[in-house]
Amino acid sequence: MAKDKKKKPVRPKALPPKGFRDYFGAEVAERNAMLAEIAEVYHRYGFDALESSAVETVEALGSFLPDVERPNAGVFAWQDEDDAWMALRYDLTAPLARVFAQHRNDLPTPYRRYAMGPVWRNEKPGPGRYRQFYQCDADTVGAASVAADAEICAMLCDTLEAVGIERGDYVVRVNNRKVLNGVLEVAGLAGDDKEAERGIVLRAIDKLDRLGTDGVRALLKEGRKDESGDFTEGAGLSDPQADVVIGFLNAKNVAKQRTFEDLAHAVRKEDATWASWILTELEYYDDPSKLSEDRFNAGRYANTLVIEELANLVGESVVGQSGVMELLQMSELLYAQGYGPDRIVIDPSVVRGLGYYTGPVYEAELTFEILDAKGRKRQFGSVAGGGRYDDLVKRFTGQEVPATGVSIGVDRLLAALREKGRISSQSKGPVVVTVMDRDRMGDYQEMVAELRNAGIRAEVYLGNPKNFGNQLKYADKRESPVAVIEGGDEKAAGVVQIKDLALGARLSAEIETTEEWKAQPAQIEIKRSDLVEEVRKMIARAEGMG
Amino acid sequence: MAKDKKKKPVRPKALPPKGFRDYFGAEVAERNAMLAEIAEVYHRYGFDALESSAVETVEALGSFLPDVERPNAGVFAWQDEDDAWMALRYDLTAPLARVFAQHRNDLPTPYRRYAMGPVWRNEKPGPGRYRQFYQCDADTVGAASVAADAEICAMLCDTLEAVGIERGDYVVRVNNRKVLNGVLEVAGLAGDDKEAERGIVLRAIDKLDRLGTDGVRALLKEGRKDESGDFTEGAGLSDPQADVVIGFLNAKNVAKQRTFEDLAHAVRKEDATWASWILTELEYYDDPSKLSEDRFNAGRYANTLVIEELANLVGESVVGQSGVMELLQMSELLYAQGYGPDRIVIDPSVVRGLGYYTGPVYEAELTFEILDAKGRKRQFGSVAGGGRYDDLVKRFTGQEVPATGVSIGVDRLLAALREKGRISSQSKGPVVVTVMDRDRMGDYQEMVAELRNAGIRAEVYLGNPKNFGNQLKYADKRESPVAVIEGGDEKAAGVVQIKDLALGARLSAEIETTEEWKAQPAQIEIKRSDLVEEVRKMIARAEGMG
Repeated sequence: MAKDKKKKPVRPKALPPKGFRDYFGAEVAERNAMLAEIAEVYHRYGFDALESSAVETVEALGSFLPDVERPNAGVFAWQDEDDAWMALRYDLTAPLARVFAQHRNDLPTPYRRYAMGPVWRNEKPGPGRYRQFYQCDADTVGAASVAADAEICAMLCDTLEAVGIERGDYVVRVNNRKVLNGVLEVAGLAGDDKEAERGIVLRAIDKLDRLGTDGVRALLKEGRKDESGDFTEGAGLSDPQADVVIGFLNAKNVAKQRTFEDLAHAVRKEDATWASWILTELEYYDDPSKLSEDRFNAGRYANTLVIEELANLVGESVVGQSGVMELLQMSELLYAQGYGPDRIVIDPSVVRGLGYYTGPVYEAELTFEILDAKGRKRQFGSVAGGGRYDDLVKRFTGQEVPATGVSIGVDRLLAALREKGRISSQSKGPVVVTVMDRDRMGDYQEMVAELRNAGIRAEVYLGNPKNFGNQLKYADKRESPVAVIEGGDEKAAGVVQIKDLALGARLSAEIETTEEWKAQPAQIEIKRSDLVEEVRKMIARAEGMG
Repeated sequence: MAKDKKKKPVRPKALPPKGFRDYFGAEVAERNAMLAEIAEVYHRYGFDALESSAVETVEALGSFLPDVERPNAGVFAWQDEDDAWMALRYDLTAPLARVFAQHRNDLPTPYRRYAMGPVWRNEKPGPGRYRQFYQCDADTVGAASVAADAEICAMLCDTLEAVGIERGDYVVRVNNRKVLNGVLEVAGLAGDDKEAERGIVLRAIDKLDRLGTDGVRALLKEGRKDESGDFTEGAGLSDPQADVVIGFLNAKNVAKQRTFEDLAHAVRKEDATWASWILTELEYYDDPSKLSEDRFNAGRYANTLVIEELANLVGESVVGQSGVMELLQMSELLYAQGYGPDRIVIDPSVVRGLGYYTGPVYEAELTFEILDAKGRKRQFGSVAGGGRYDDLVKRFTGQEVPATGVSIGVDRLLAALREKGRISSQSKGPVVVTVMDRDRMGDYQEMVAELRNAGIRAEVYLGNPKNFGNQLKYADKRESPVAVIEGGDEKAAGVVQIKDLALGARLSAEIETTEEWKAQPAQIEIKRSDLVEEVRKMIARAEGMG
């Protein structure tokens, strides 16, 4: 019944679209294992799973409108039969807002939900930048209290520890957008007519890491020419105005300065105990995660100094004072639950994509060092972040609904776990039962069934068994720990050969003659009835050596 | 810094696109738990996870070409910036073919892979028919031997049992497309000029369930008018030709008929043991899954009779004989591994979407009864199916690559598990710590942290605490087992109240006076220091009653 092919068909390219990739074996299993561990923590905190549809209407996603051809500002969008535009979700927050608005009468309020899954961005792909990637979010909708923000920070700590980041290897940095707004007010940048200046200031602050204080100051004032000669226009602030903004960014340094003064005072007083305590406080500013357990109060005091300095900076600004108060409340709530200053750090430099947030912002940073592409040591950096955004549901309902939430960078956290050796390549290869006699496939299947029933990952070779070398090559590719061999003679004698492939590979690198090969102990003969037991032993031995 | 809204914004509708839906809480958790159990079995069988991109090029997905506007034959497709068409995958098999073609030099051959995830269909949505749904597939690529098909059938049995379908509640029905092709050859429908007739015959066979033998016979011959008066043209077969095809569908009945004759023979011989054995065989045709362990050979014999009858039907057809031989090999391989005729059934009526498969086809059917929408008993039916398709990779490489695989209907299997009560609603509500005094949020957070650290799902009420009734309503909506209450007096006395909400709800249905309410034992006072222990006890009690 073969169809006569009249035309030679044009073969499609065996490639995914640009910017997309596939994940194989261990990569998938490791990510799923990590996400399951995270879900377990989220669930314990009372968060419920939500899996919204991957496709949303363009109007529900918002942030752009259908243009002539299609709305392609960052999303993958297309028109339905009835001309309605739909698009792949670009994050998990916009769908949450839609779901909460849709089901608000049935959902509990506050609504704690977590979501994990791929999102899609129609952006230019680059090295390591893909157009589909995982997000893992937890949000509380309908809770105005900063207790909700504090809870998410606590949960973030527990989550990191649950997946294998040890205490001391991370900190959660906390800030509050209202403090920044208060500072801008003090700098005389509050009115509606100052929106352009505020925009420039916010973008400048966001570049602190890259440009340093001097670069930011230039942007706050007349502007800045970068290395390529491009000029970025500044916000045109006066020196006193710029000082206020820079003071905000430097709040931690000011607090540190005050601590130095305390130290000088203690030394003058010849109070060695006090001095030693203050030294801990000083070290804390540089690496909060290494604070020892009996010095919690030193860190707590350091955070209080930072908050005090912020209180000075926002002066009479109501919004600023409210932000400072929220920072204080959050840190007190967290300390009450045992999340001390070694894990929770007040840090004014945390700004988190400036357009979006309305109150507390937070960020989890891994503090251990790795080598970058050029072999230089650097800290691993941020793996999660979030904050309070109170306007998202309002788009749908007109009513303001307070919300706060965190998003974990799934790929970065996985990379961190691999870096720390916390993922022991789970996906071990299977035992391969080789096929010596193709008419006895039933015998081999029986062996494989025995092994599987004993919980051992195993498979029979299903390719063409003619060339035995190919079977061993296959086992090698599968990273198989053990090969099982049963020829006719073995069958008659009630024995099988089992071959330690890991050991075999090592020996083959060392052994040169065929005689040595034969004498090597990587292959042993066992009773057929001892198959499961002996294979298990051999795997355990291989793992012990691995 | 509030922006002055000049225009009243048009509010987007809070709805997903037509045909899409969201999954909440337990639905998500239960599906993930089931998929994890399935993955565990697949992994043990040596299958590796693969997560391919959700988006493919339209040419890689195949089966249609870009037309003027967009290729919308069943898929969601759109054009990239550079005019290339891309689309959401509509199944997990087409992406597998692309991935294998792309990475064939790096992947082991045979390549066993499993994949789980959503797929998208641009079809008219209907009740229970969604445009995004989960698939869960396992395939072996590059193995020509029917041992690969047998392995997947065995794995399907293990998978069903692993997720909670007991042995005796399912069978895996096996057939072979080559047998059908052989039968068509015998019926004189083999040549290229008979393609139209073959198409009609195949579609008619696929309707056996609905139309019965007479309806199929009408379609094989001159055609058939349905209840609405619509006429479907027939294949125009002669009576002897139609007899051959109907004979194929009736092969099991013919085998059963032979067994009746055996029974008559046994009775005539007054051989009671033999007769009893044959009775088992007869019952087996109607419900193979209920075969008792000491009667395996009766079922095996029944399957052999069916295969013999198929061998008669295909006569001299080479392809038909090859199909019969493969059926025999598969059942023998499966029996050798302990997958007996109570689980593996030879069934010529299994055809599985006729265009696609080239050899063995198989289908897992749940045999227990449920009530349908009209309250009638019916068998639950198919939850998984698959077969051999040898041409999919060829599209890319030009080389034939044999492949076989199964797809589990995730939603149907979940529905079956719920039906059998195998999913004990995992997602228990959290303990809710109520807020009596909003200034003591730290105290409540501390309690919640203690409970969580003890592994108890718990949360503090994060809404406005003013109205205590709202807090209990919230706890009710959360299906919370226990509420914790600590007012100022309790705090001073070092005690807390804990309230059994499940019991409370039951009592409130029975109790009518306020006095009785106060006397009811659903709320007890405990020492603050005993919080974790007492809450644990109360949850255990609630579960015991649940």
